Amino acid sequence: MEKGEKGEFELIGRFFSGIGHSDQRVVLGPGDDCGLLNVPEGHELCVSTDTLLSEVHFPADSPGDLVAHRAMAANLSDLSAMGAAPLGFLVALTLPGSDDQWLQAFATTIDAISREQEIALVGGNMARGTLSVTITVMGVVPSGQGLLRRGASIHEGIFVTGHPGDAAAGLQVLRAGITGYDDLKAAYIRPPSRLGLGQQLRPLASACIDVSDGLLADLDHLLQASGVGAEIMLPSLPLSESLVAFSGPDASRLALAGGDDYELCFSAPMDHESRLLALAAEAGINIALIGRIVTGSGIRLIDAAGQSTEADVSGYSHF
Amino acid sequence: MEKGEKGEFELIGRFFSGIGHSDQRVVLGPGDDCGLLNVPEGHELCVSTDTLLSEVHFPADSPGDLVAHRAMAANLSDLSAMGAAPLGFLVALTLPGSDDQWLQAFATTIDAISREQEIALVGGNMARGTLSVTITVMGVVPSGQGLLRRGASIHEGIFVTGHPGDAAAGLQVLRAGITGYDDLKAAYIRPPSRLGLGQQLRPLASACIDVSDGLLADLDHLLQASGVGAEIMLPSLPLSESLVAFSGPDASRLALAGGDDYELCFSAPMDHESRLLALAAEAGINIALIGRIVTGSGIRLIDAAGQSTEADVSGYSHF
Repeated sequence: MEKGEKGEFELIGRFFSGIGHSDQRVVLGPGDDCGLLNVPEGHELCVSTDTLLSEVHFPADSPGDLVAHRAMAANLSDLSAMGAAPLGFLVALTLPGSDDQWLQAFATTIDAISREQEIALVGGNMARGTLSVTITVMGVVPSGQGLLRRGASIHEGIFVTGHPGDAAAGLQVLRAGITGYDDLKAAYIRPPSRLGLGQQLRPLASACIDVSDGLLADLDHLLQASGVGAEIMLPSLPLSESLVAFSGPDASRLALAGGDDYELCFSAPMDHESRLLALAAEAGINIALIGRIVTGSGIRLIDAAGQSTEADVSGYSHF
Repeated sequence: MEKGEKGEFELIGRFFSGIGHSDQRVVLGPGDDCGLLNVPEGHELCVSTDTLLSEVHFPADSPGDLVAHRAMAANLSDLSAMGAAPLGFLVALTLPGSDDQWLQAFATTIDAISREQEIALVGGNMARGTLSVTITVMGVVPSGQGLLRRGASIHEGIFVTGHPGDAAAGLQVLRAGITGYDDLKAAYIRPPSRLGLGQQLRPLASACIDVSDGLLADLDHLLQASGVGAEIMLPSLPLSESLVAFSGPDASRLALAGGDDYELCFSAPMDHESRLLALAAEAGINIALIGRIVTGSGIRLIDAAGQSTEADVSGYSHF
């Protein structure tokens, strides 16, 4: 292995030094062998890691800000789905070369999201290779109050935040180089954060998951963990106007199987519906009741005429 | 993005389900949106992440056990250098395809190290691409007692564990396909854990770092963080017999700049020397006094004749 001028330390110092949010829970930030954090008493630590690869999770020519946005969203949505408050994160970045403009855009976005979401950058790694980003996020929940995937009970409602399908349509718009449809593009480029809402869902939802591989695929994980099935009312899918305008008859399919949304899908007792809708209105986030938890397993799709079909729950697969 | 049969979940279930150590601090293991952990009261959480890439950090044809050993060692040594007790870890694995034999060897080794070191696997990610492993480790230290890189004072001794250079020589032996030199090969393939020793060093050492990029390069990080310089006595380098036999006149250079050792380099007041040597004897780990902290910056190498030269402290660089 060749010796050089310790370029990665120089790059880390130039682009990542001192960036982002900090608070009194961060005892030691990046730059030592470990970062050091305080976990508040009476809380459990939540941890999750997600890798985003060039050409798999984003187009190969994506700018640094898009990659940073999507990598953070993919990870933060796991904290949101747990009902966790953000604590800290680590960024392991593998880059084909040192492209100052790309790195600046990446670091500036990491900095902005860190401040916005009040989650501190506490460590990282930089290596040379095919472009990929692995982020590890840490959050905290009051002990015993984490929102798990298991816990859904029959007769409960199934809810989803935002407008699933918009991100998948946005990627199609971007790939085709079509002008307009800025809200669809934004859904793909800058997925939303549901960190605040996730925490508010803790006393209301019985089970929760984030939608990354597609609504049906991820809902099915929740159902399997809970040992139940679901009925989804197709007319209740919260299709955005832009999605319908762009995708036409394909809109429902994109909403059900598109992936990349980083919205939350959760079950809750129906007597919480009004509180949920009030919460949604207050937060300015769409929350739609799209179906019910039923006995059995799998998902049945019910159309406007009341006809039902078994859903294909396969999401995006890497292998 | 194409839909498939959710192969990564099947692979994760087949190779990684239920493996490794667990204890009462693990509230929730892998399989949900986050893992959940309890951090004991009065302790700080230590976190670190390291990526190992094919052809950069290990030969491209390396078997799964070698990659697992080295990826765990690279990460656990950051906890060791902090004086931390192990808590949990996450594995983000990117693989070109699903090679059952490789995955079995990788998972079996992750399982064994997890049990041996009593550190629980609490999450992960699997994706398809160029082979790389990003592990994130978590540990705990009693609050305020983490062993930082800063803290070295002049007149203190500089110590190193094990036999630096053995791993770099071992890689040369492996690459050349030479038979014998099993201890050198082992130093590369199965780097040691210094987790126990690191915790014992907390009351004795003033600053500590793990040796991954080369003894001089990593010592220089410690020196820079502490605002001091060092003198290293070349005759005091703990060269192993095998290293001298294989590398001859190149042995010192490999010990100083070879990298891949995952040993600990630390400073400590000289009146702790006897306690340190007793600790070493008890643990069966070599600890060598190799130099002194001095004023200024950088590292001077002193040979047997008392001649001194300025050291080149550049370690391995990715850019």
